[in-house]
Amino acid sequence: MLSRSPQPQVVIVGAGFGGLQAAKALAKAPVDIALIDTYNHHCFQPLLYQVATAALSPADVAWPIRAIMRAQKNVRVIMARVTGIDVQARRVHTSEIDLPYDYLVLATGSTHSYFGHDDWAPFAPGLKHIADATEIRRRFLLAFERAEVVEDEAERARLLTFVIVGGGATGVEMAGAIAEVARRTLRHDFRRIDPRKSRIILLEAGPRLLPSFPEHLSDYATRSLQKMGVEVELNRTVTGCDAQGVSLGGDGGDRIEAATLVWAAGVVASPAALWIGAEHDRAGRVTVNADLSVSGRPEIFAVGDTASIYDPDGKPVPGIAPAAKQMGSYAGKLIAARVLGQTAPAPFAYRHLGELATIGRKSAVVKLGFFQLTGFLGWLFWSAIHIYFLIGLRNRFVVAINWLWSYMTFQRGARLIGVARQ
Amino acid sequence: MLSRSPQPQVVIVGAGFGGLQAAKALAKAPVDIALIDTYNHHCFQPLLYQVATAALSPADVAWPIRAIMRAQKNVRVIMARVTGIDVQARRVHTSEIDLPYDYLVLATGSTHSYFGHDDWAPFAPGLKHIADATEIRRRFLLAFERAEVVEDEAERARLLTFVIVGGGATGVEMAGAIAEVARRTLRHDFRRIDPRKSRIILLEAGPRLLPSFPEHLSDYATRSLQKMGVEVELNRTVTGCDAQGVSLGGDGGDRIEAATLVWAAGVVASPAALWIGAEHDRAGRVTVNADLSVSGRPEIFAVGDTASIYDPDGKPVPGIAPAAKQMGSYAGKLIAARVLGQTAPAPFAYRHLGELATIGRKSAVVKLGFFQLTGFLGWLFWSAIHIYFLIGLRNRFVVAINWLWSYMTFQRGARLIGVARQ
Repeated sequence: MLSRSPQPQVVIVGAGFGGLQAAKALAKAPVDIALIDTYNHHCFQPLLYQVATAALSPADVAWPIRAIMRAQKNVRVIMARVTGIDVQARRVHTSEIDLPYDYLVLATGSTHSYFGHDDWAPFAPGLKHIADATEIRRRFLLAFERAEVVEDEAERARLLTFVIVGGGATGVEMAGAIAEVARRTLRHDFRRIDPRKSRIILLEAGPRLLPSFPEHLSDYATRSLQKMGVEVELNRTVTGCDAQGVSLGGDGGDRIEAATLVWAAGVVASPAALWIGAEHDRAGRVTVNADLSVSGRPEIFAVGDTASIYDPDGKPVPGIAPAAKQMGSYAGKLIAARVLGQTAPAPFAYRHLGELATIGRKSAVVKLGFFQLTGFLGWLFWSAIHIYFLIGLRNRFVVAINWLWSYMTFQRGARLIGVARQ
Repeated sequence: MLSRSPQPQVVIVGAGFGGLQAAKALAKAPVDIALIDTYNHHCFQPLLYQVATAALSPADVAWPIRAIMRAQKNVRVIMARVTGIDVQARRVHTSEIDLPYDYLVLATGSTHSYFGHDDWAPFAPGLKHIADATEIRRRFLLAFERAEVVEDEAERARLLTFVIVGGGATGVEMAGAIAEVARRTLRHDFRRIDPRKSRIILLEAGPRLLPSFPEHLSDYATRSLQKMGVEVELNRTVTGCDAQGVSLGGDGGDRIEAATLVWAAGVVASPAALWIGAEHDRAGRVTVNADLSVSGRPEIFAVGDTASIYDPDGKPVPGIAPAAKQMGSYAGKLIAARVLGQTAPAPFAYRHLGELATIGRKSAVVKLGFFQLTGFLGWLFWSAIHIYFLIGLRNRFVVAINWLWSYMTFQRGARLIGVARQ
């Protein structure tokens, strides 16, 4: 039990893009902040597919939360799992400790959704955390190893078939990266199999890839993937995932025998709505007011993938990093204003900056307002944007020359605590 | 079942320093080589302690065996676990496949030995594989996280106590690195605990650290570690390891309550001697002839930590990387000579190049013949040597700028298949 300090207590649950931004927005406020996360590291999710496809190490896309918050002395980082929230007593219960709050920010993110078929999860892992990425990497690389030694031809073909379910940005990026590894990276590494003969199949339930992009960019992505050897199958719904492959619905049904399945088809919010007994949408996101506070609970805020909110045009705010950051920042500023007795900021208004998705090694589709790019220019732009945000997160490229650097500065790039998948 | 090719079949078990060198020495020989390893990657063990202490990522000290052997077309890499060897039929049985051999090289290395107390293993992991290193890293970093939230003072002290058992090079390097992380890296990261107050205790059963070095270098290492805040305890034997800490023998006995134990006290050879029913020494190493062949089995060779052999002065050849490489290279050359009907090389003679051990961030002890170095010069020399050998292994420093590089060359630095500890 902690003694309450005289300053207002802010508890932020989740150190993703939203939670970190909320904490930063409170840097100068006279509050004590407890920043809780299950993991000891912030994960840069947009590059997680590169860990899953062995381009990057886990430590390249993750950073200790403590290191990020080192200089902000009003933040206490707590590695713990939230077990419940008592909204009457205003206390957060965790696996380690109980924390009182005056203000609570829920920034707990989302996880993959199997649309009611959670039994598919062991066969088709999704991609949300470092441990997901290393598990997909393990399966994906192991499939080639097994194919090299197996004698049965059908089994070899099954081992060399990779199915990605879901044609959003993650699915497109995974399919492109897997195709490249199979066709380029591994080309000369095997003696009995030819990795270039692998089948990489991208399944999308809707009529086109990247549904949030303009249609011609979706077409561009499809053609680019096809050129890389990816089989793009649209209007195909998955009706089952098992240890041997995937079953499809539609005309007459169908079946793909595949050793490696990746799930990139849908997300569902964390159980934050249940913790506080709040109204939520079908995806489990907490319904929030225009100031991101929870109805009837002005001291509780939900941000990022935890919040269900619409932009002025009536479109739902998308579950992407920039949206989470904007909401986190807003919630932090609002709390600061309240604590200082200042005028509250105007209602939250989402500014849509645009969308990007890479397709393999040197192509990407980019849409920022009226500005659109494809191909190599798109890829350069994509790289610049990601490098910029990585650098914002403590100079990630310097981190990449980890060893030399850590000897010079005493910092270490790989402070991950691997935990089992939950 | 594979059809036998007309060329002599060489099976090499283990892709450590010895096995890789044996394969390379056979690059131009008219043989078919099967290189078997449980893992898909070669691990650069001398830097594994840096993974355990979060300075390097696993991918920085591991490299896919296939990538190393890519250009050598007479090598087939097989990821499999050996389950037995039929020396009459000359076949290696593995988890995946059966392999016939005309020549067999056993390069299976060693694992940590608990001197008959294998029940200590869960509490005091050793450091041989990537998975060991990431497990030690997990425990070590988690101890600080737990200490930050725990209310009980004795438990907090226990969480901040780190015991390393064994004062050889690995123990010295681990103790120095842990001390640096606690005192420097984490210094500003916590709010309730001061990581600088951690206790790091290095236990050695003998009268001095680094027993294979000259005595004044041992003393130097002890003093350097003490300056870094490491408690060096000599002549202390461990009588028990459990979830709460470690029990010590000696005068009256003693007990250290510690959450994190690391075992660096002894090694035992892999079960290769049992597979072939060969004579072996107390550490399980196969007794070999002067040409590294097994008594009565001129077609079977043991190299590296798998072999028990003495240098001309009657001293045992040490279990270090250069010795394994020399033996692997010798066995490969001998097989090549036999296959080609050439004169066999002179009996194996170990050339001792020297020994090195780092002590923290910028100090090391080096002994190469009469040439000795300590302090920063020693550390520069140590760095240069390791960089050199890493570069020998496909330009490791370029690998470190992983992301950029993989986009330019299509190669990937992180192709590890994580497997559970065996």
